[in-house]
Amino acid sequence: MNLRELARELRSFEGVTRKHPVKTVVEGLLEPLDVTFEGEVIADVGEDAAAVKVGDDILLIAADGIWGKLIDRDPWWAGYCAVLVNVNDVLAMGGRPVGLVNVLSTSDVDVCREILEGMREGAWKFSTPVLGGHTHPDTPYTAVDAAIVGVTDEEHLVLSSTAEEGDLIVFVIDLNGRPYPEYPLNWDTTTMKDPDYLRRQMEAVVEASKLVKAGKDVSNPGLVGTLAMMLEASGCLGAEVWLDSIPKPEDVDMVTWLKMYPGMGFVYAVDSERDVRAIRRVLSDARLEVSVIGEVTEDGVVKVSEGDESARVFDFREDRILGVSPR
Amino acid sequence: MNLRELARELRSFEGVTRKHPVKTVVEGLLEPLDVTFEGEVIADVGEDAAAVKVGDDILLIAADGIWGKLIDRDPWWAGYCAVLVNVNDVLAMGGRPVGLVNVLSTSDVDVCREILEGMREGAWKFSTPVLGGHTHPDTPYTAVDAAIVGVTDEEHLVLSSTAEEGDLIVFVIDLNGRPYPEYPLNWDTTTMKDPDYLRRQMEAVVEASKLVKAGKDVSNPGLVGTLAMMLEASGCLGAEVWLDSIPKPEDVDMVTWLKMYPGMGFVYAVDSERDVRAIRRVLSDARLEVSVIGEVTEDGVVKVSEGDESARVFDFREDRILGVSPR
Repeated sequence: MNLRELARELRSFEGVTRKHPVKTVVEGLLEPLDVTFEGEVIADVGEDAAAVKVGDDILLIAADGIWGKLIDRDPWWAGYCAVLVNVNDVLAMGGRPVGLVNVLSTSDVDVCREILEGMREGAWKFSTPVLGGHTHPDTPYTAVDAAIVGVTDEEHLVLSSTAEEGDLIVFVIDLNGRPYPEYPLNWDTTTMKDPDYLRRQMEAVVEASKLVKAGKDVSNPGLVGTLAMMLEASGCLGAEVWLDSIPKPEDVDMVTWLKMYPGMGFVYAVDSERDVRAIRRVLSDARLEVSVIGEVTEDGVVKVSEGDESARVFDFREDRILGVSPR
Repeated sequence: MNLRELARELRSFEGVTRKHPVKTVVEGLLEPLDVTFEGEVIADVGEDAAAVKVGDDILLIAADGIWGKLIDRDPWWAGYCAVLVNVNDVLAMGGRPVGLVNVLSTSDVDVCREILEGMREGAWKFSTPVLGGHTHPDTPYTAVDAAIVGVTDEEHLVLSSTAEEGDLIVFVIDLNGRPYPEYPLNWDTTTMKDPDYLRRQMEAVVEASKLVKAGKDVSNPGLVGTLAMMLEASGCLGAEVWLDSIPKPEDVDMVTWLKMYPGMGFVYAVDSERDVRAIRRVLSDARLEVSVIGEVTEDGVVKVSEGDESARVFDFREDRILGVSPR
């Protein structure tokens, strides 16, 4: 596959295009409605989690639903991922997860049990308790959604909206994993590891958060799609992504790799090489790879390059992904 | 309708029986799984919200889904109620709401917009911002779920599981309302009032929380069903409920009233008449009625009485509602 085909493939990837309707959905809620009973809202729409300052803490609050396709194919994995994706939302913002609540909708007891077993395994793996939730026991469909609460402070808080031109783009990834058999677009790096190992990775990610300017966890839109969402939130900046600098598992091809949802993967905007080295010192002990894979540009074009060639993936002078602007 | 018929009607009310499958659903998650990354879990399953101590604060975390029937009949009201029911979960535990996240599943843009408009109105009315969430834009069904985060402290925290024999049962209600036209089992006391009025009620409920021993917000199972859930959580205690002490709107009959979900209604266990008077002083300024409607007993039987007659509604020596035990 040549570079232009790869760019087209990434642009039209369902993990990205599925984000488009978000604009329509949130429009009605986007006009300023600055009400609060308690706390001060620092960030909300367009971030991996909302951030609200309450006393000296910053609470991180996120909700994620699991794609119906995933539930149909492997309910256990759907339950496990309901924990994983929410934990990653909190880690991405520099926070420590406190706990989860879920909403389960099903009338199939067996599916329900499998989802819960997966969720329980995830809770154990990521040291994040499932605190309760709500059950619709009589729905004609099966769905699993979860919300998470995490805690951080001003020093560690990482937003999506604060990248700037000239920042280095840093990809953090655990390469020690495998495509999840039932769902090969998930790069599973956690089911085969114990909670202590993952706890060390989580602690390291929180620690490294002090050293980054902006960031997101790599999720359904894949590495380039997630990066593009960060750049969109940062005022529609652009980027050059150097394909040959992207570390990847040997047995996964690049196009597939760029669409994968990793168990532990983040994309950051970082001020300098000096900061990158400091981040690497923190994360390499936890067996996370830290690679500079590109640079933030001001032109609003997200492109991938290889040698002398380059190809446009997104152009914010014309396109939008989420289409919403953070505070 | 005689007393025994009324008792049977309450026992078999769908708002109560619908809670039964919860046991099956949570069983897999109930065995002790004492993992935490941050904070100390004080209360979880069986409470209106989970409570986790983080630093000096107690975070309250709850999730609630909106009954599919309600969405089909009135999407605006379903969105509004997604805020209302979650706010009440936090208030019931003595907390102040910080913010909400939602999960919307729909492929119908009009329904989606109506739900969001209702949610936006609820956010404004209850001074509780919608901070974000997740959208499934391509589901074959429509669902709306929300999770809330609130904050309280040890002095104000109210649990369901701490009622004791001999406690007075106190019903707190705003009588100034109307059955919601599209869904007459909802006692709407909020759509016609402004945010300041509701804020005063919310502040008063938080203030009164210092004076109660246990409590819950009156929800789908109605007044007696909600009381029974509190008693079940408190070690399967019983109660005598004095029907003639229950305040009710003139134009609603008693059976219907006991099945209604009020906009602002709580049932508390209170130590003494002296405490009831103190609670009344706090709440009557906010135009909330405070009535002693019965007493907690040790026999595990929840009965309603009128004059010399009484009839059994629940008997925890045989029945369960949630069937789960709190920590």
